[in-house]
Amino acid sequence: MTTQQLIDQIKIKKSFLTIGLDVDLEKIPHHLLTLEDPIFEFNKAIIDATHDLAVSYKPNTAFYEAYGIKGWMSLQKTIQYINLNYPEIFTIADAKRGDIGNTSSMYAKAFFEDLNFDSLTVAPYMGKDSVEPFLRFNNKHTIMLALTSNEGAFDFQTLNVSSASGSKELYKQVVETSQTWENSENLMYVVGATKAEYFAEIRKIIPDSFLLVPGVGTQGGSLSEVCKQGMNANVGLLINSSRAIIYASNGTDFAQKARIEALKMQQEMEEIMNLRFNV
Amino acid sequence: MTTQQLIDQIKIKKSFLTIGLDVDLEKIPHHLLTLEDPIFEFNKAIIDATHDLAVSYKPNTAFYEAYGIKGWMSLQKTIQYINLNYPEIFTIADAKRGDIGNTSSMYAKAFFEDLNFDSLTVAPYMGKDSVEPFLRFNNKHTIMLALTSNEGAFDFQTLNVSSASGSKELYKQVVETSQTWENSENLMYVVGATKAEYFAEIRKIIPDSFLLVPGVGTQGGSLSEVCKQGMNANVGLLINSSRAIIYASNGTDFAQKARIEALKMQQEMEEIMNLRFNV
Repeated sequence: MTTQQLIDQIKIKKSFLTIGLDVDLEKIPHHLLTLEDPIFEFNKAIIDATHDLAVSYKPNTAFYEAYGIKGWMSLQKTIQYINLNYPEIFTIADAKRGDIGNTSSMYAKAFFEDLNFDSLTVAPYMGKDSVEPFLRFNNKHTIMLALTSNEGAFDFQTLNVSSASGSKELYKQVVETSQTWENSENLMYVVGATKAEYFAEIRKIIPDSFLLVPGVGTQGGSLSEVCKQGMNANVGLLINSSRAIIYASNGTDFAQKARIEALKMQQEMEEIMNLRFNV
Repeated sequence: MTTQQLIDQIKIKKSFLTIGLDVDLEKIPHHLLTLEDPIFEFNKAIIDATHDLAVSYKPNTAFYEAYGIKGWMSLQKTIQYINLNYPEIFTIADAKRGDIGNTSSMYAKAFFEDLNFDSLTVAPYMGKDSVEPFLRFNNKHTIMLALTSNEGAFDFQTLNVSSASGSKELYKQVVETSQTWENSENLMYVVGATKAEYFAEIRKIIPDSFLLVPGVGTQGGSLSEVCKQGMNANVGLLINSSRAIIYASNGTDFAQKARIEALKMQQEMEEIMNLRFNV
């Protein structure tokens, strides 16, 4: 999917919602557990109930790998289901991969070719040659960790580093350096919502890039604050919500309840977009 | 496996060799491709031919994920084969995972419980709460990236960072900080062999920890240099070799040729151990 197609979808749906499919067998409704593939059935129901309100789904690979081959099959069925039925959806494999060049090429093959995701999250610690193999794919997007939403973000990401271009926090250095890499136009960034004050800083470095924003809702971030600081002329944000939507109920009405939560977020987003773009 | 059991194996085998199972269908002998599971058959032959010379095998998960469910099955069969036939072997899932706490817990479940690896490589960028879930497992080992062997290591890992404890290179800060985390005795570290001069520095911070060392051979690192700077009283090193051993031949003699290469490395290691420990 091209970036322009993603922007078009955001404008059509008046939504920049990503729904995180972090599916834990211990949290999904009990009545699904007797089915052959409970995780896929759960995802299918959530997707069918919310696809007009979200522009993107983001399965977190850990939750699938934890169930071994069965989990990997559920992941494959989920991405195939989305690609077949809702090709306008932007798909994100939240995998946080990254390794030396020939290994990253294998991960790129796994997620961009074999599973046919539109995008993949990657970790920056190993630098340029661990990320560039992902950037080579046309119309595929590499979403690099910049500033994450967890407490551990303060361990290293916000430390001051010195480089030829002066002293700045590591996450800014990561973003700045990555902009010099080949095909950097295929980069997006993870920026946690729990630190809305950082968005203005990041926008100085990458005014145009898309930011994937976890941490709204369960982790305490404010949607309006994030939008105020982080939105650009193309919206430029994908706001992720996982647990607050997919686990809104664990009864037989789970998909309807998920829709209600997704609708709340979409309406809040529509309001923000209307105000911002004077529609 | 306990650290002491690993040390015992190193002393018995006079080897601290890890063989990296980075298995690419395009590089393995053609005659295997007609078999039902060529990757597993390749691994089985390599393992059977080298298990007395190596203390550890390290499948890189990217190479399995690239083949989807079939690849995941090959990985599962490989780890089961090792655990069943060679329980004295220390197994490493080279996966470079790391995510927010509840997600890292799922990865830990996937690799430590479902697949039953002894250890897993993780990336440090997301800090304490992304790594501690792995450290909670008794007799399982978390091998954190410190200084990697690729060119991109110089992008961020060697930048100077400022913290309460003074100014130092990021990789040192990462190692130092991680030593304060709960159950840090379950940590090992990845330190690339291409930078032998850094080993002395790292040993000042973590004299006793095991270091997993990629980059000897194909990537140009010198075994004797690494040992001189990085070896401790328990050896404390796991030297990885992947391509130089497993792709020593792509004919029907591939396993025998792999053994010859592994034997060369083991003999070099034995010589170094004899000199060092005056055996």
